[in-house]
Amino acid sequence: MNSLNTEEKKDLEMRLKRIEGQVRGIQKMIEEDKYCVDILTQVSAVRGALKKVGLIILDKHIHGCVQRAIRNDEGDAMIDELMEVLTRFTE
Amino acid sequence: MNSLNTEEKKDLEMRLKRIEGQVRGIQKMIEEDKYCVDILTQVSAVRGALKKVGLIILDKHIHGCVQRAIRNDEGDAMIDELMEVLTRFTE
Amino acid sequence: MNSLNTEEKKDLEMRLKRIEGQVRGIQKMIEEDKYCVDILTQVSAVRGALKKVGLIILDKHIHGCVQRAIRNDEGDAMIDELMEVLTRFTE
Amino acid sequence: MNSLNTEEKKDLEMRLKRIEGQVRGIQKMIEEDKYCVDILTQVSAVRGALKKVGLIILDKHIHGCVQRAIRNDEGDAMIDELMEVLTRFTE
Repeated sequence: MNSLNTEEKKDLEMRLKRIEGQVRGIQKMIEEDKYCVDILTQVSAVRGALKKVGLIILDKHIHGCVQRAIRNDEGDAMIDELMEVLTRFTE
Repeated sequence: MNSLNTEEKKDLEMRLKRIEGQVRGIQKMIEEDKYCVDILTQVSAVRGALKKVGLIILDKHIHGCVQRAIRNDEGDAMIDELMEVLTRFTE
Repeated sequence: MNSLNTEEKKDLEMRLKRIEGQVRGIQKMIEEDKYCVDILTQVSAVRGALKKVGLIILDKHIHGCVQRAIRNDEGDAMIDELMEVLTRFTE
Repeated sequence: MNSLNTEEKKDLEMRLKRIEGQVRGIQKMIEEDKYCVDILTQVSAVRGALKKVGLIILDKHIHGCVQRAIRNDEGDAMIDELMEVLTRFTE
């Protein structure tokens, strides 16, 4: 169970489909002996797109699951878990 | 033209194939209504794997293209270009 | 008003005092013509220490202010504000 | 010995002096019980300013020390060292 509605899922799936295509594009660039700097620019673009995906899910998670847990007096454990995931996300 | 030899290309392609699979896995997690925190953990893992790919390409680029350019007295323009790509990569 | 108690404030102030000293140390390294790589290593260390400070404050903020706001039915605005600060923090 | 000339050193020292002041400002914000989100915004600003300092030193280091080492056929060891520092810097 997560905090994403149908529209949000569709948006995220489109973003991830595009990211998947970009990752395949990077493989092709390597195969076709493209210039390192152009490959690196693409790698940075995909990392940026993945960060955006992460921030969207984070937003929905806090507005949804975390908020719900706090209302049910189970907030503290949920926030500890959130902080762990945030620590990894900012690495 | 880039600075990657056959073995390095193969290693990078394997890494990117795995990343592609992980991105597809994230789409499936969203579709199957998996828990946000688990999805976010996967997003962080893929971003880390992409950073590793970027650092490998950067390493080959500097050892190869940049070193060659410097030996041909064309180092400064090459380094300016490298710094631009580094700035984007650290965003 | 923030969510930090006396002990947490003391811990953060000690961390920031140490960071201040490290920043002064970097100035001295530059002045004394120390090796770039050693200066860069120190810059990375200070950035890491600042990230830790940020994560501590974030933790207290979510456990405190955000949790309180949600209990008072003012959670959504608070979470939107949190997401803005998180977006900047992950830049 | 590093690759910074007098003007570059002066610029970096001014930036670091400003950063030092900002770190002191954050200590004061904590002491005076300022709002967590405002403190976090300042922490992000200082981390950004430190990244800029790092990128400037990196630029001078590659244009200077690394380029010189490559011309003296000692490039590879220098680039390995650079990659280590870059890995830490992107953490």
